[in-house]
Amino acid sequence: MQAIWLQNRKLSYRTDIPVPIPANGEALVKVLLAGICATDLQLIKGYYPYTGILGHEFVGEIVQAADAPERIGERVVGEINVACGKCDNCVRNQPTHCEQRNVLGIINRNGAFAEYLCLPLTNLIPVPNSIPNEMAVFTEPLAAALQIQQQVSIAPKHKVLIVGAGRLGQLIAQTLILTGCHLQVVARYEKQQLLLATHKIAWIMEQDIKSHNFDIVIEATGSKTGFNLAIQAVRPRGIIVLKSTYKDMEANLSSIVINEITLVGSRCGPFAPALHLLENKLVDPSRLIANKFPLSQSLQAFDYIQQPGIMKVLLQMEP
Amino acid sequence: MQAIWLQNRKLSYRTDIPVPIPANGEALVKVLLAGICATDLQLIKGYYPYTGILGHEFVGEIVQAADAPERIGERVVGEINVACGKCDNCVRNQPTHCEQRNVLGIINRNGAFAEYLCLPLTNLIPVPNSIPNEMAVFTEPLAAALQIQQQVSIAPKHKVLIVGAGRLGQLIAQTLILTGCHLQVVARYEKQQLLLATHKIAWIMEQDIKSHNFDIVIEATGSKTGFNLAIQAVRPRGIIVLKSTYKDMEANLSSIVINEITLVGSRCGPFAPALHLLENKLVDPSRLIANKFPLSQSLQAFDYIQQPGIMKVLLQMEP
Repeated sequence: MQAIWLQNRKLSYRTDIPVPIPANGEALVKVLLAGICATDLQLIKGYYPYTGILGHEFVGEIVQAADAPERIGERVVGEINVACGKCDNCVRNQPTHCEQRNVLGIINRNGAFAEYLCLPLTNLIPVPNSIPNEMAVFTEPLAAALQIQQQVSIAPKHKVLIVGAGRLGQLIAQTLILTGCHLQVVARYEKQQLLLATHKIAWIMEQDIKSHNFDIVIEATGSKTGFNLAIQAVRPRGIIVLKSTYKDMEANLSSIVINEITLVGSRCGPFAPALHLLENKLVDPSRLIANKFPLSQSLQAFDYIQQPGIMKVLLQMEP
Repeated sequence: MQAIWLQNRKLSYRTDIPVPIPANGEALVKVLLAGICATDLQLIKGYYPYTGILGHEFVGEIVQAADAPERIGERVVGEINVACGKCDNCVRNQPTHCEQRNVLGIINRNGAFAEYLCLPLTNLIPVPNSIPNEMAVFTEPLAAALQIQQQVSIAPKHKVLIVGAGRLGQLIAQTLILTGCHLQVVARYEKQQLLLATHKIAWIMEQDIKSHNFDIVIEATGSKTGFNLAIQAVRPRGIIVLKSTYKDMEANLSSIVINEITLVGSRCGPFAPALHLLENKLVDPSRLIANKFPLSQSLQAFDYIQQPGIMKVLLQMEP
């Protein structure tokens, strides 16, 4: 089958990869549409030494499922962490932190930039008919955005700042505006600002941010500049959520102690509420789509997405 | 009067400092006993550009108080943050984060290593008769230890690790053991281990710590080694409390996101519960006292405390 292969920080488009064979309890999924995410770009830069098929945001169709033949034909999205179910973290009901986990397209499991992938049936969640593929493909990053609210209670009384208005920042903004909080998003590019304005979300330029003024700051850039801006913007005893991939990023801890700031690392989130938001059109990620490329032109897609200000790029599987 | 003066990272013993004159609402306090703390040592190293009389841990006696003459003769300890009462943080009932604050012996206010100091009457808290000076002088650091429990709920179900068994680590250990949590303290030196054993607190060597095994880790060393050990010891979704002074310390944020760790900066704490613990002999800091020096020999005291494994050093004012 066709697939995008990552090895030694080099991507290649291959057509010689065999269709995978599902293990016990797994299904074979035909990928319909997949999305490129910042983590994919970080993996190419060597953030984690991964070799295999890249990609973890997808919508697909179950085509083979020995343990649940009734699910064949189901359109699904997939939880990307495959857990052992037995370790301390699994027993603590934290499967995304399973000590033995493999992660679709990230750790020891071939990913979604391919014609087919395998995942356990328990990881595959049916997509309601009313959600088109172009929306369903955003379930995973939308779930990651919702993880913030699983960890930190955000209420109408809170002044909240999102640092970064890229792919993830926009999704976070669309989820947080639903809480009724006083929300502002740092947005550098006109395209980002217009997109926020479409959803009636206020944007702000870096230089206009009042110091120590926000109860909660979401850092969604993954950069040192973004982190320092968050430290500057948050009030004493406020909360900073780290919602990005940080490759070897160092941060100064002094002001965290002096201002008694709470820093919360945040990763994967819950799929069911993400699908609920999509089904009820409470968020609309479709305007984030900058371009769609066929799988065979994925390498061009990766060049394209590296340009500044580019939002979501999707990879479409040919029929 | 005699005082220990810090200027350009240099300490001097001076006898030419005039006795201070209390401002409106302030009292003049005769210092009876004062304690040297890690923050004093950091200030000498240039952690914050402070010029003036050093010292913020003390017990003293009110000798002049125009606005409350009935309080003259009262033995007191003092909250070290002097707040404006009007800024956003004061209105939010967070006076220790007042934007205009001065801090005894740390920011813009002469400190406690002197015969006399001035503080607002509202900062001065009476010491119950049953608490001797040698215990009362620990009120401020004990309050700082209790601040951890103001910020993070610690329960019997929690596995807690304290990294560092020095002055502050020992006080923290004595407060946390009262919660019934499963507590272990990283202690390198035999003296530290014996002290913990006296209070039936379990100690552990660095190399024996099981990775990702603790719900809550208190970092009380202020060093990069200590921080990295905390990151190693805490379980996914666990909490690290930063309970020290960090001078320009940089830390890697990747694992905070991957393991969804919460980092909590912690500073000054509540005096009333600290005095309560001392009055009821629920903590006993007296064994921490390594030595007492007269104020006139303070410079020797500062040399002495820099030796490894030395616990509390007190400065006694001559009658």
